[in-house]
Amino acid sequence: MRLQIPVTLRWADLDAYGHVNNVEALRLLEEARIAAFWRHGPGSTPTAVIESGPGAATHTFVAATEVEYLAPLGYHREPVIVELWIGHLGGASIDVCYRVLAPAEPRTPGAALTGSPVAPADLVAHVHARTTMVMVDAGTGRPRRLTDGERAAWLPYVEDPVVFRRRRR
Amino acid sequence: MRLQIPVTLRWADLDAYGHVNNVEALRLLEEARIAAFWRHGPGSTPTAVIESGPGAATHTFVAATEVEYLAPLGYHREPVIVELWIGHLGGASIDVCYRVLAPAEPRTPGAALTGSPVAPADLVAHVHARTTMVMVDAGTGRPRRLTDGERAAWLPYVEDPVVFRRRRR
Amino acid sequence: MRLQIPVTLRWADLDAYGHVNNVEALRLLEEARIAAFWRHGPGSTPTAVIESGPGAATHTFVAATEVEYLAPLGYHREPVIVELWIGHLGGASIDVCYRVLAPAEPRTPGAALTGSPVAPADLVAHVHARTTMVMVDAGTGRPRRLTDGERAAWLPYVEDPVVFRRRRR
Amino acid sequence: MRLQIPVTLRWADLDAYGHVNNVEALRLLEEARIAAFWRHGPGSTPTAVIESGPGAATHTFVAATEVEYLAPLGYHREPVIVELWIGHLGGASIDVCYRVLAPAEPRTPGAALTGSPVAPADLVAHVHARTTMVMVDAGTGRPRRLTDGERAAWLPYVEDPVVFRRRRR
Repeated sequence: MRLQIPVTLRWADLDAYGHVNNVEALRLLEEARIAAFWRHGPGSTPTAVIESGPGAATHTFVAATEVEYLAPLGYHREPVIVELWIGHLGGASIDVCYRVLAPAEPRTPGAALTGSPVAPADLVAHVHARTTMVMVDAGTGRPRRLTDGERAAWLPYVEDPVVFRRRRR
Repeated sequence: MRLQIPVTLRWADLDAYGHVNNVEALRLLEEARIAAFWRHGPGSTPTAVIESGPGAATHTFVAATEVEYLAPLGYHREPVIVELWIGHLGGASIDVCYRVLAPAEPRTPGAALTGSPVAPADLVAHVHARTTMVMVDAGTGRPRRLTDGERAAWLPYVEDPVVFRRRRR
Repeated sequence: MRLQIPVTLRWADLDAYGHVNNVEALRLLEEARIAAFWRHGPGSTPTAVIESGPGAATHTFVAATEVEYLAPLGYHREPVIVELWIGHLGGASIDVCYRVLAPAEPRTPGAALTGSPVAPADLVAHVHARTTMVMVDAGTGRPRRLTDGERAAWLPYVEDPVVFRRRRR
Repeated sequence: MRLQIPVTLRWADLDAYGHVNNVEALRLLEEARIAAFWRHGPGSTPTAVIESGPGAATHTFVAATEVEYLAPLGYHREPVIVELWIGHLGGASIDVCYRVLAPAEPRTPGAALTGSPVAPADLVAHVHARTTMVMVDAGTGRPRRLTDGERAAWLPYVEDPVVFRRRRR
């Protein structure tokens, strides 16, 4: 099962080329990950069950990231969709996989600003990525193993890892 | 009349003090301004009528900003509300005024992560600001006067300018 | 007396207009302020004497900022110069004043990338700004008065506050 | 042969955990890459010979990035060193490899602020990374092959690609 997390672009995500900067694109993944994995409060439906962030008992750290840019991502008023799932459930780490879905780049500049809704079927993948997340005990500062509760909660989101187009060297 | 623009925080807006960085707070104003003033497309309801951004006939530039930080702004899943109106309609510039509304800082760390909805009445102003925007002709690169159409469209949003608490020196 | 702090631009400071984004320009001021005011270590010459930052006994918070953009700031390999002085020494706050000095915008696009040194006399002010800084006791979280030591250390840097070109409304 | 590019941290590179944010760490690589590969002006010694950036005849785009975080990177006044070389010289792309070198994390918080110089021998790798860069013809917007001149200029910088510690899945 995959989560579909809408993430709103900011105009300043664009660099001088007029596209979302390749580094800022990873910020979109971070936002989607926080929306998906940090515990929601009592008044909301949790999508996953880790309480993280500063002050929590567990910190989640990014140990590694692999990202592939398939197409330049222009500015859109409508949120992009970050599709997110778990590609690997390890002993003390998980691999989170992502696809950033957005309308295909418009042919006429400025069209992206119109904010007209785009049918989901017209969204194409602009970015493929995978981050390896390590659970760290906030008290000791050392990695800790996943709990049974975490495994049970995350199992439904495990699918085959994202397939990158470029052959690894 | 004032616009109420929801703007979603990003976790990385926080600095090492654990609050939205004072510089990043201005990014929230920029996002609200773009949502309010850039022309919406044919399929949407325009809130104001300037077509701006790179590629447009008019560029809007920030000529000056004044901002006052009333209370530290913590991280919240729920969007903050940027209240936005026009404090002055000049010959070739406008003053846009802002109040950033968010829940009062929680007493217990971590509570802000719960995402529980907050009643609008419980929102308090964390930031007051005003930006002076200049209309620039994209062709000549020089400021140009407001058009009659712009004046007519913006008039309903003109109110008294934001009142800063600190006396100017 | 004014300090002259070199601050290196980052390419991503540019926005889609190809100039340093107006919000990012304040980041340059933050960097200069930290270089000037945070205590240097035993092996270096202090320029000012406040120990700040997370973990220190005093936190310095920005209470207000006023900034005026005089000319678009393009990308330059050479650091810009942030000229910095104290415009007002208050009871529990100080006003820090800034001028961001950089070469005048080149007439031919791309010339800014050449990295050719520019004579200091050819630098022009692109930004004028003033930030009001409040000293906060890290233990109590409340503002505290400047100490005699701080006053003595900062007195040489007090000059008339920066003069903004636009009349205040 | 490897280049050693000093890159100055910004305080706002830190996130609420008090370390350089994992996304911002890639910004340091971008800065080093621009310093190394974009053409220097007539008054300076070129380190490599591509004229890039908006307005140039060739745009360089990041097609893929792989990054591994070996140790948390704290704030340091002294620039970090980004070691940079070419791990693969392809037909229309190159792989740039990086190691981010900085002092080992201090045991006592605040020590990183002292700015005391650190002997190069005491620098340790905090980040390993590799980016695949594609040369794009600015006119056609399509990838183009490396020129003989580019190959000749870059050959001295080719070494074995960076070795990641984690096994690929």
